[in-house]
Amino acid sequence: MLIVQKYGGSSVADAERIKRVAGRIADLKKEGHNLVVVVSAMGDTTDDLIELVKGVSDRPEDREMDMILSTGEQVSIALLAMAVKSLGLDSISMTGPQAGIITNRIHTKARIKEINCRRLKQELDSGKVVIVAGFQGINRAGDITTLGRGGSDTTAVALAAALKADLCEIYTDVDGVYTTDPRVVKNARKLDCITYDEMLELAHLGAQVLHPRSVECAKLHNITLHVRSSFNQNSGTVVKEVNDVEKSLVVTGIAHDLNVAKIGLFDVPDKPGIAWKVFSSLANEHINVDMIVQSAMRDEINDISFTVATTDLKKALAVVERIKDEVGISGYTWDDGVSKVSAVGAGMASNPGIAAMMFEALAGVGINLEMISTSEIRVSCIIKSDRTLEAVSALHEKFGLGK
Amino acid sequence: MLIVQKYGGSSVADAERIKRVAGRIADLKKEGHNLVVVVSAMGDTTDDLIELVKGVSDRPEDREMDMILSTGEQVSIALLAMAVKSLGLDSISMTGPQAGIITNRIHTKARIKEINCRRLKQELDSGKVVIVAGFQGINRAGDITTLGRGGSDTTAVALAAALKADLCEIYTDVDGVYTTDPRVVKNARKLDCITYDEMLELAHLGAQVLHPRSVECAKLHNITLHVRSSFNQNSGTVVKEVNDVEKSLVVTGIAHDLNVAKIGLFDVPDKPGIAWKVFSSLANEHINVDMIVQSAMRDEINDISFTVATTDLKKALAVVERIKDEVGISGYTWDDGVSKVSAVGAGMASNPGIAAMMFEALAGVGINLEMISTSEIRVSCIIKSDRTLEAVSALHEKFGLGK
Repeated sequence: MLIVQKYGGSSVADAERIKRVAGRIADLKKEGHNLVVVVSAMGDTTDDLIELVKGVSDRPEDREMDMILSTGEQVSIALLAMAVKSLGLDSISMTGPQAGIITNRIHTKARIKEINCRRLKQELDSGKVVIVAGFQGINRAGDITTLGRGGSDTTAVALAAALKADLCEIYTDVDGVYTTDPRVVKNARKLDCITYDEMLELAHLGAQVLHPRSVECAKLHNITLHVRSSFNQNSGTVVKEVNDVEKSLVVTGIAHDLNVAKIGLFDVPDKPGIAWKVFSSLANEHINVDMIVQSAMRDEINDISFTVATTDLKKALAVVERIKDEVGISGYTWDDGVSKVSAVGAGMASNPGIAAMMFEALAGVGINLEMISTSEIRVSCIIKSDRTLEAVSALHEKFGLGK
Repeated sequence: MLIVQKYGGSSVADAERIKRVAGRIADLKKEGHNLVVVVSAMGDTTDDLIELVKGVSDRPEDREMDMILSTGEQVSIALLAMAVKSLGLDSISMTGPQAGIITNRIHTKARIKEINCRRLKQELDSGKVVIVAGFQGINRAGDITTLGRGGSDTTAVALAAALKADLCEIYTDVDGVYTTDPRVVKNARKLDCITYDEMLELAHLGAQVLHPRSVECAKLHNITLHVRSSFNQNSGTVVKEVNDVEKSLVVTGIAHDLNVAKIGLFDVPDKPGIAWKVFSSLANEHINVDMIVQSAMRDEINDISFTVATTDLKKALAVVERIKDEVGISGYTWDDGVSKVSAVGAGMASNPGIAAMMFEALAGVGINLEMISTSEIRVSCIIKSDRTLEAVSALHEKFGLGK
């Protein structure tokens, strides 16, 4: 089998852990598998580099940020290759550029355009364990780029697709994907299997295990993912297309996200182009708008509420302030004391009433809903953030997700 | 003017020093000069990386060492580019590979084969200050190589040659090249000017200011070097071809080297091919032999003594032990308690008697000479290492080098 593995920063945080990862690689190699291993920067390396940057510049250029941040993975690939070699296996490290990972020109959040894996394949064919730097690539100008948050996951999945790997293992510091955050709900249960769409919703909704981009890429190329811990031999959570017509669980997991702020616009004129003006202005500032709710119309005037990441709130309010006269709103309000809780499940589409069950559970503990949004496989509610943990527990209980 | 500057690790050891270097660059740029700046890794970065390596492997592969060590300069170029930008100048960092520095395949001590500076020139022509990572390049296989000790000096001089720069400034933590080590002799004097050949001899003999490879390269391409301190505005030492028929100073400087060990071979048969066998065996193990002295012949049998770096002594003795029967020597001895002191001066060639003056000075303080070697512009003696500082002082005094 050709297996692509990815080890996150906590799995290679020090020499002992790197040696442990090398041992894991050696075991698999002895079973006859071919291995491509993607690694992140060691533990806190990225934070340390950012501290260095702060010492010399308030507004560092994105290109130079990529130049400095990409060194983190270059250190860890070299160390892991050495550790694997010292176990008697042939191994070679490759930077993103050396592995042929070609991206677009958008520094600090580049997207992979193609992978020229000719040399990587040669090294693999010669029996070597190939260790590839995650998170990084090279653009057509020859500049080093980084892929932004979750970049190493994306590197691993994209390589798995390009190499037509049989499996992509994502090693992390938790045992897999849980029905909800196990730090919040004690009897949260690890899921053995989950579909791409469910994983996508959970990933988007704040389950930090896998980055949505990597899940999208896996879905597109039908790559089976196995999310598991590098600290034990337990099997984790498999992410793949599930063909069972009937899924046993209607709701697979409960996610929550505290990085949410709500903005309300009052008396928005109901004329063509107004919503476009508001949301394109926000998009131009690279502000990602999540939920949008338009209240019932009265006299050709609407209230519009939407949510953004708390980290984007300041930027978003500046946009609103700038365009408010042009758009013709009477005023606006905001609240950064809210959070989002969501129930996710592929079986939801064919099971009406999930939303109602959710509202019932939340009402049962006296939690008020500020906004509601649904998709085929998800129901999300905005609530006061100080009630988040209560809400998650109530929903986990209601949908019978515990052990 | 097109100026290539090189800043060593101590000049960019922290954020404050990097900002100071950026200020220096800005001043020169405002005077209308074009600048290419070569930087080393910050302060102790290389040592820190080597510590990391020790944690995972006893015998790391050279290729992987280059992979990890080259990150040091990648960090410093990004930081310096950011610091220069924040002063309002346009600037771009380039790794060795990006700057087109093509080397041979010898990892950890690669030699530059050619420089494809098309992109570097473009960036320079567009008005940018170009910051280049010293010490590193790329081989034809696409692997990152490093140039070994003094590599950043070599990068700077090679770039100056490729770009036909008007001047190459080497910034370091001392004020220039001295008549001898100022830590040893209090009244050592900074030299305003020195020839390539003198600098070469001094560099080879343990004056740590400039690496001999970079001086050779500067001589070959007739690049004027200016060795100076990054911590003040004093002018330093200019290294160039001097055309004055009469040089005022016969001896320019006194150098000493403590990294010397002596090996003596007894009763070496005086047959063709024996010396070849000894020294080619050492060369095959990459052991650099410095002085070789063959004693007077008696009955077709010689004693041969030679010196190696103390750091190579163990390896050298292993070679001697292996070949001693084949070569037919009766025994061998060694001494790592020796050092080398040398007088260097381009005027020496036309001034006989310098060696005699040197022996007189050393005899005057009761120092015994164990080996002697001379070149056109240098006389070197091996002495007991505990007398080194006395010897240097006596020679500095004898040749009137003090202030």
